[in-house]
Amino acid sequence: MTFTSVSDSDIQFFQELLQDRCSISHDDLKKYSHDETEDLEVLPNVVLKPNTPEEVSQILKHCNERNICVTPSGARTGLSGGAIPLYGGVAMSMEKFDQIIEIDEDNHQVTVEPGVITQVLQEAVKEKGLFYPPDPASKGSCFIGGNVSENSGGPKAVKYGVTNEYVLNLEVVLPSGEIIWTGANVLKNATGYPLTQLMVGSEGTLGVITKIVLKLIPHPTHDLLMLVPFYSATEACEAVTAIFKVGITPSGLEFMERDALTWTQSFLDDTSINVADNHAAHLLIEVDGFDPEKLMAECAQIMDVLENFETDEILFAESQAQKDTLWRLRRSVGEAVKANSIYKEEDTVVPRYELPKLLEHVKRIGAEYGFTSVCYGHAGDGNLHINIIKGEMSDEKWNNELSKAIRELFTEVVALGGTLSGEHGIGLVQKQYMDIPFSETSLNLMRGIKDVFDPKGILNPGKVF
Amino acid sequence: MTFTSVSDSDIQFFQELLQDRCSISHDDLKKYSHDETEDLEVLPNVVLKPNTPEEVSQILKHCNERNICVTPSGARTGLSGGAIPLYGGVAMSMEKFDQIIEIDEDNHQVTVEPGVITQVLQEAVKEKGLFYPPDPASKGSCFIGGNVSENSGGPKAVKYGVTNEYVLNLEVVLPSGEIIWTGANVLKNATGYPLTQLMVGSEGTLGVITKIVLKLIPHPTHDLLMLVPFYSATEACEAVTAIFKVGITPSGLEFMERDALTWTQSFLDDTSINVADNHAAHLLIEVDGFDPEKLMAECAQIMDVLENFETDEILFAESQAQKDTLWRLRRSVGEAVKANSIYKEEDTVVPRYELPKLLEHVKRIGAEYGFTSVCYGHAGDGNLHINIIKGEMSDEKWNNELSKAIRELFTEVVALGGTLSGEHGIGLVQKQYMDIPFSETSLNLMRGIKDVFDPKGILNPGKVF
Repeated sequence: MTFTSVSDSDIQFFQELLQDRCSISHDDLKKYSHDETEDLEVLPNVVLKPNTPEEVSQILKHCNERNICVTPSGARTGLSGGAIPLYGGVAMSMEKFDQIIEIDEDNHQVTVEPGVITQVLQEAVKEKGLFYPPDPASKGSCFIGGNVSENSGGPKAVKYGVTNEYVLNLEVVLPSGEIIWTGANVLKNATGYPLTQLMVGSEGTLGVITKIVLKLIPHPTHDLLMLVPFYSATEACEAVTAIFKVGITPSGLEFMERDALTWTQSFLDDTSINVADNHAAHLLIEVDGFDPEKLMAECAQIMDVLENFETDEILFAESQAQKDTLWRLRRSVGEAVKANSIYKEEDTVVPRYELPKLLEHVKRIGAEYGFTSVCYGHAGDGNLHINIIKGEMSDEKWNNELSKAIRELFTEVVALGGTLSGEHGIGLVQKQYMDIPFSETSLNLMRGIKDVFDPKGILNPGKVF
Repeated sequence: MTFTSVSDSDIQFFQELLQDRCSISHDDLKKYSHDETEDLEVLPNVVLKPNTPEEVSQILKHCNERNICVTPSGARTGLSGGAIPLYGGVAMSMEKFDQIIEIDEDNHQVTVEPGVITQVLQEAVKEKGLFYPPDPASKGSCFIGGNVSENSGGPKAVKYGVTNEYVLNLEVVLPSGEIIWTGANVLKNATGYPLTQLMVGSEGTLGVITKIVLKLIPHPTHDLLMLVPFYSATEACEAVTAIFKVGITPSGLEFMERDALTWTQSFLDDTSINVADNHAAHLLIEVDGFDPEKLMAECAQIMDVLENFETDEILFAESQAQKDTLWRLRRSVGEAVKANSIYKEEDTVVPRYELPKLLEHVKRIGAEYGFTSVCYGHAGDGNLHINIIKGEMSDEKWNNELSKAIRELFTEVVALGGTLSGEHGIGLVQKQYMDIPFSETSLNLMRGIKDVFDPKGILNPGKVF
């Protein structure tokens, strides 16, 4: 792909439009050159921070006419390189779109701008007794717009579903500069092709989202949390399916291999729990609802299920503080791994009963290629984050053979009925593997859709395909 | 649009491929000329009943090459004319795809062919304790493939969501004859554009679905049902929002205007309930779950809410037989209206708090144009089926002015944040109104998507746009 460089006259146009919300300072270019994906960075030529759909429209129109590429940028917490301006050009930060426009208590909906931090949104609607469930690990810093663009999940997805189940309607600016609404503010919609659902998870490649209408639900009033140590990681995975089979849908069912937990304890200097030498993996299990007695009954049922597995003593969180500590441990695994070693993270997802088999493949392929791995993730969804650890692997093997190993892994994942990414998106780092889950025909359909929305290909080029 | 006529040599090709599953008998052409949409019919030139994806592929490849149009056909229970072969050509019935391929109890999934009757599927998975919730009124005769193609809803959608929340993966034959899988058998998927979600609700215009992988959930073990008579239809609508506001999510929340119920009683010769002269509307309210005591508590909470409204005595269904009777009444309203008068049905959907305003607009516009109306539907979703009754309206007004009235109505619907169709689809009968919810830009995106999948436009032409 070739794009026109950003010229002085382009900068002048942007400055007249945005004043100090247009920057070419090295610090800014550096800041918007990366997200949280391993250690990739590419500098944009200019950073723009529009704050109205009309400004976004003028920027896109200008860039589209002049063939300048534009990479939308949220809080840059992504894990697939979606916000990296691979071909330079414009990094368009959505951070000024930071308003919760309306919490509609009558209809259980909220209209929000894309630059609102997910947790800020969740807390604002919770004050009205309402719940926006999707909660990626980065919820304290990521933007809701990024969540929509990546179709984010998080621990609650197992009971409440991922982002696309909550997005009712979107205001989107197309590369042409045209501003559209994709749908309607309704709970069911059989009116034409689902442009809304097509935008969700499109990773900033089809249009720039400037307003989001989300469905909300009543906020559960109670939850219970338990941490279950297993002597075998395979058994921990098997227990996941067993819990669902008795008819319980936990609001969180997280799996952590031993190292995931111990590395995080070191990283956070946290000594709140004791991981014994023979603990191979843990499940963190949450149930939530409106009736504490019913939750106690569900926990009892889960305990009954767990009696069929070899577990050590189960820790029940006894206070909100203890719950917070356990969730903080779980949410910090990603950062802890990052701090510990050069690594590469995969976001595989399989039907959940296949998790033990997936884990087996990970370890077998690791042994074959000489890497270790730390696995954790949303086991209730079959979504396993596999951190491949460089450790003692030689640079040469790491650089030249790792992608072969990953290809082998993804081939097994797809054979199990799974796919590359459950919630992180494809972005930059997984696109080379898209031929594994999809035929060339399917990929051509996707490319065709891209062309319909963005005929010149200026929007977030080099991603997904 | 112009298509090549089906010639003798085409028929010969189809006969060689399908033997007696190719028909040009007048009875068959007549049978596949219509669905349940008012009284429209257009004869196809030939009826084909393939029973493998490969046969579908060969038919589509042949037709695509020769520019013969193909209209996929399910159980023809649709209400928007989606299955009417508007330009003749091939009616491709999917009725031979009638196998439930696998109920995967380990992963709570089912793989099914599109020609399985929805209720048959529901009963088969229920035997394993599993639940496929979407249940259109026609569930006893409609096909699951049609439900996917129209993104069907039904009474349970208010708690459990519509079809698109259950479709994980689809095998699809494209007009080119290529066979693809759209996704993976997983609960969350951030891998490329959502081809699966794009197929759901695409009304047979993008590809022919030959296999469907659905998510299942544990089947609730108990439910309670009550019928609540209101003296004011507006108050009944207002009560809907009030129930959600106390944090309850019923598994059914159906609204029926007086005539909807009394006409259905006459139609079914049913005297099981007594509709008093001053009953203006009824709500049928169901709660379901796993704990009978909790359901009783929810009903008590609903009763508390209803005390703020003027209602007559509430009927609690005391037996499964009485529940069946009440649901049969509700499910038969559509047929009863059809038997009673020439009519036209709209499938409007608005944010649910706006229902009273929608009802007001319906009656005001009716008074202006001289028609009466019978309204009923899934009030919990804001989905109101508006049956416009010809009654005493002159043929001339009915033929010449009705579309103006409907346009006025849809304009109000969109102003309320709503849209044309909640669950019936656009098909043939609503396409002339698509400019109300969508800008030309949005419609062009949809047309562009159609071109990507079906460049020659042979698949179900004349629908949606």
